[in-house]
Amino acid sequence: MRKSVPLLGAFLLAGAVAALEAAEAAASRAKATPHPDVIDDLVAANRILSDQGVVDGFGHVSVRHDTDPTRFLLARSMAPGLVSANDILEFDLDGNAFEPRGRTLYVERFIHSEIYKAHPDIKAVVHSHSPSIIPFGVTDVPLRPIYHMSSFLGAGVPVFEIREAGGAATDMLIRDPVLGAAVARKLGGSAVVLMRGHGNVVVGQSIEQVVFRAIYTEINAKLQAEALRLGRGEVAFLNAEEAANATATNNLVLGRPWELWKQQAFRPR
Amino acid sequence: MRKSVPLLGAFLLAGAVAALEAAEAAASRAKATPHPDVIDDLVAANRILSDQGVVDGFGHVSVRHDTDPTRFLLARSMAPGLVSANDILEFDLDGNAFEPRGRTLYVERFIHSEIYKAHPDIKAVVHSHSPSIIPFGVTDVPLRPIYHMSSFLGAGVPVFEIREAGGAATDMLIRDPVLGAAVARKLGGSAVVLMRGHGNVVVGQSIEQVVFRAIYTEINAKLQAEALRLGRGEVAFLNAEEAANATATNNLVLGRPWELWKQQAFRPR
Amino acid sequence: MRKSVPLLGAFLLAGAVAALEAAEAAASRAKATPHPDVIDDLVAANRILSDQGVVDGFGHVSVRHDTDPTRFLLARSMAPGLVSANDILEFDLDGNAFEPRGRTLYVERFIHSEIYKAHPDIKAVVHSHSPSIIPFGVTDVPLRPIYHMSSFLGAGVPVFEIREAGGAATDMLIRDPVLGAAVARKLGGSAVVLMRGHGNVVVGQSIEQVVFRAIYTEINAKLQAEALRLGRGEVAFLNAEEAANATATNNLVLGRPWELWKQQAFRPR
Amino acid sequence: MRKSVPLLGAFLLAGAVAALEAAEAAASRAKATPHPDVIDDLVAANRILSDQGVVDGFGHVSVRHDTDPTRFLLARSMAPGLVSANDILEFDLDGNAFEPRGRTLYVERFIHSEIYKAHPDIKAVVHSHSPSIIPFGVTDVPLRPIYHMSSFLGAGVPVFEIREAGGAATDMLIRDPVLGAAVARKLGGSAVVLMRGHGNVVVGQSIEQVVFRAIYTEINAKLQAEALRLGRGEVAFLNAEEAANATATNNLVLGRPWELWKQQAFRPR
Repeated sequence: MRKSVPLLGAFLLAGAVAALEAAEAAASRAKATPHPDVIDDLVAANRILSDQGVVDGFGHVSVRHDTDPTRFLLARSMAPGLVSANDILEFDLDGNAFEPRGRTLYVERFIHSEIYKAHPDIKAVVHSHSPSIIPFGVTDVPLRPIYHMSSFLGAGVPVFEIREAGGAATDMLIRDPVLGAAVARKLGGSAVVLMRGHGNVVVGQSIEQVVFRAIYTEINAKLQAEALRLGRGEVAFLNAEEAANATATNNLVLGRPWELWKQQAFRPR
Repeated sequence: MRKSVPLLGAFLLAGAVAALEAAEAAASRAKATPHPDVIDDLVAANRILSDQGVVDGFGHVSVRHDTDPTRFLLARSMAPGLVSANDILEFDLDGNAFEPRGRTLYVERFIHSEIYKAHPDIKAVVHSHSPSIIPFGVTDVPLRPIYHMSSFLGAGVPVFEIREAGGAATDMLIRDPVLGAAVARKLGGSAVVLMRGHGNVVVGQSIEQVVFRAIYTEINAKLQAEALRLGRGEVAFLNAEEAANATATNNLVLGRPWELWKQQAFRPR
Repeated sequence: MRKSVPLLGAFLLAGAVAALEAAEAAASRAKATPHPDVIDDLVAANRILSDQGVVDGFGHVSVRHDTDPTRFLLARSMAPGLVSANDILEFDLDGNAFEPRGRTLYVERFIHSEIYKAHPDIKAVVHSHSPSIIPFGVTDVPLRPIYHMSSFLGAGVPVFEIREAGGAATDMLIRDPVLGAAVARKLGGSAVVLMRGHGNVVVGQSIEQVVFRAIYTEINAKLQAEALRLGRGEVAFLNAEEAANATATNNLVLGRPWELWKQQAFRPR
Repeated sequence: MRKSVPLLGAFLLAGAVAALEAAEAAASRAKATPHPDVIDDLVAANRILSDQGVVDGFGHVSVRHDTDPTRFLLARSMAPGLVSANDILEFDLDGNAFEPRGRTLYVERFIHSEIYKAHPDIKAVVHSHSPSIIPFGVTDVPLRPIYHMSSFLGAGVPVFEIREAGGAATDMLIRDPVLGAAVARKLGGSAVVLMRGHGNVVVGQSIEQVVFRAIYTEINAKLQAEALRLGRGEVAFLNAEEAANATATNNLVLGRPWELWKQQAFRPR
């Protein structure tokens, strides 16, 4: 178990120094150009998650590089709803940026880097403070699949308690690889891991899938809370086979809602 | 009782083959051109249900053909909010499409075909995952009419449990005529049938009526849940005569909200 | 106590005949032209109430005539969100329209006519199915002022049960002067009367005031239900003096939200 | 303890006279021009708080003058969502306006003046009727930080009961310096103070910070109420160190959501 630096000033400074060193280290390596479609889809994912209320000014979405699995793509530190193609940066699996050119990085990029490092099958990651999910992270009520759209929750939804890996006096953020690795371990083989007093992480095998899952996790949380009240705790959830089968089916139609969400996210207002 | 194919891969493949065969069979028959107003209204229904939050990327609405009662009209597989006139296909009552020309079909078109087959008086069908209704499908609390706008619920709202007709290991979808017929039977003479862990089906005698009912079923669910909490279970619902009389009255003014919803659904943004 | 006509067909027909006779009687009288600002404000009230979610495709708002207190102004039967100046009609206090020229009238115009007849001080009336208020009409929980904006609720909020005046088999609508008079009596000196299984009526001394009250009644209902749950029934409401004093103060600033709501209701989308 | 004037007419009249005298006194002093960016940010704050639902037609936001700490900037009496640069007035710490030129002032400007007077470190103040927070002011459930975004609540959230300073027959408003000073005392060293049956006040060390806090206090209230229901009262809140550390971290990234909120508030519709 890791002890966080007790003095706030100290660990903020340490973080800043580490970021600077990382930036310099990364700058010395070559950047691999991803396929333009990957960039376009990642920009769309940022806009969609913002438009659908999964992220607000905070939260981020990344995708593993399409030609180099030791890299991933993530925006510079900014609100997802404002991200454009030229805000996308490349990172290695230690969370170092290639050619940052002075741009600020998300403090919590280690959520992404450590999950890609620990789980080779995972291709996309969303971190958010998706509102309806917050209550499930601070109570002992497990998130479970209430309908087929959120059937991917059938694999279980663990809760990450930062005090176990970071002690009782963190600032709640996953600000280094050690904490990132702890999140990746807690995630295990699930599609979603909650973070107590903070938010959640959703993973998938494509940008479309991770966006689908992030949106339906939010909806499931809202509907599950409502159903538990209505039924006074008695709710019929999907069973394990229903959940697995519905997930396989949903994976065939991810493009259907994606087209709608994209049109909504980019419509002129 | 029907047993679903136990292996997921097998029944997905079977579905694909069946769809292909159906498409070929249908292509050999002539297409009957519906009145353009019917197409326009069906497109409007798609857009309205999306704009009003009854459907999201999923869900669908159909109408029985205006000149040939053995056929019905339904969009190709896509988000309802994006449907235009040239996305509308004709189907027979076995769920076969006329002139699909390679377009993907909704897997669950059998909800529509089997309801039209079993209930000659029904002219329009909506299937959705309308959010506030989901909790009523997974608890034992019956949906009842809380006010005159949703008086059509007075005919009762049964709950369809797919395990009864499909076994305990389906993917939750109504992917064949056998399951579609089971939904149609459960619906009986009601306006709405809930589907556990999935969504609901609403039927009507016109496109305007089925849209009206789908929207007010969603609103009723939300208000009923709220009232049950407020009154600690004690709620005064419409009685049978009030429900029947209010329904007859509402049927005379379906055009009033329709014009508003249509204007809202098509407004430039 | 009045017994409603037991057969639905009969009372619908009776209503149609009565409307026709009324229209003919009214056509023989002269129309008094109201000040254009009154019409503009009434159109704005229709659009605002729709934009703020107090009315949907149904509901209506009227104002007493500015020069002839025996008349009032109300739109023809249509969704409030679509009302324009040339949709406004004049009515006498028996609910007869002047120069209807074949336009359909709201069945429930008698809510307005009978309230204006019984309460000379009332200058404007809103009837709606404002959603958050519905649960308070079907439970025994009284609506009370949770904050100063809804202090006008301090005068009490009675609940109208149509079965008392109309019997147990109505269609829930206030479709004649007898039922309208019963609503006016139940209202008494309050600003709001709820209608079980139907909606509510809000009254005021100006269009701006009645719109203010209709909007804050909806908000109060939502917040009161939430507070009762949070406090497990223990909630500190405004006392009688606080409610009266806050109401007098609010009456001085009705123009402030009105300007905002008007701008929002008419903004291009 | 102060006793309010018992007769409503009297204290309304007294308020009007006081406002007039104040305006005349202020007119004799020179106006200090603030930096244009301060005005721009204050206008943006008004629009953002309206767009995000923290304020409606009522509520206000102020900032301490950038060159003269004995003054602050606040709009004339109007809906925040409509405020432009030429609506901003300067005030002294007794709530007197400089060069009001006949413009109406917010009755409750004394919330701002007395807080700036009592707390030299506070640079910006928001007063609102932010909806989800209302229930916490009328029950005995304390508002506590459910996640890191609202960690500033960790300093405690006192509730101001106007009856203590103003007696049991006020109009609920902070309409003079005595009541304003009582609010400032109740606030103490906290970031937020609730006002029973009225709303709340949020303070900060910059416009960006106070807007951030006002928005996340609203979100925290909504999520905390939901979590308390879900967990039947058992909720894990941030501990004191987590709250303090997260607040220090958040203060470094206030610009990130600000850019998003500003873009959303000013987007053409």
